[in-house]
Amino acid sequence: MLDPRLKSFAQATNYAALTTLFSNGDPQTHIMWVDANDDHLLLNTQKGRAKYRNLLADPRVAVTIFDDNDPYRFVEARGRVVEFRHGAEASSHINRLSWKYDAKDFDGPLDQRVMLVVEVHRVIAHL
Amino acid sequence: MLDPRLKSFAQATNYAALTTLFSNGDPQTHIMWVDANDDHLLLNTQKGRAKYRNLLADPRVAVTIFDDNDPYRFVEARGRVVEFRHGAEASSHINRLSWKYDAKDFDGPLDQRVMLVVEVHRVIAHL
Repeated sequence: MLDPRLKSFAQATNYAALTTLFSNGDPQTHIMWVDANDDHLLLNTQKGRAKYRNLLADPRVAVTIFDDNDPYRFVEARGRVVEFRHGAEASSHINRLSWKYDAKDFDGPLDQRVMLVVEVHRVIAHL
Repeated sequence: MLDPRLKSFAQATNYAALTTLFSNGDPQTHIMWVDANDDHLLLNTQKGRAKYRNLLADPRVAVTIFDDNDPYRFVEARGRVVEFRHGAEASSHINRLSWKYDAKDFDGPLDQRVMLVVEVHRVIAHL
């Protein structure tokens, strides 16, 4: 089960800083949409992106979700991507995220989407 | 010289997601105050913090600065800490940051502050 503070931060319309690692260990950090179910953080990227290539080689991530109205409040999660989901599930997930954040259908290409399922092993809440 | 888009993002009242690396390579990402001079990003932490210990062992960082009013706009920088500055310079820097973000003197202890001077080798603007 996901830490309830993390789950609630991820299910609200807050953004996440997602960090992945290049093959030489250098970190890359992007601001992303995020969501959660009871057990995992769920993010969504696209084939061909550096972060996707990074994760195929090294699944470790930091996902730091900050309060959109007060960035002093943030919840830091560390873990790893345990599953990549493609196809209809990834398209329908990016559409749900688009509705959550922008209240409209996702307007980019759907066929290259990848849903990232993140297992979290460490949570630190800065609240 | 710092990329002008990065410099202007860092000098505005935007927050940064700072990523450092634990000794096993796991990333840690925190939301931080940030500033810049003509050549470097400048952040400020405290002795005893994990991020400071991480940086002493491995100076690589990702610093992703996002528009406080529109997190879709962010500037991603990758580089390394080339200098740690302590004492009066670090205290006066945290006070300048406190005035920039909160319009008041910094209200935490000053004697443990450390200014991080970041040399940037890669910038990607998502604007």
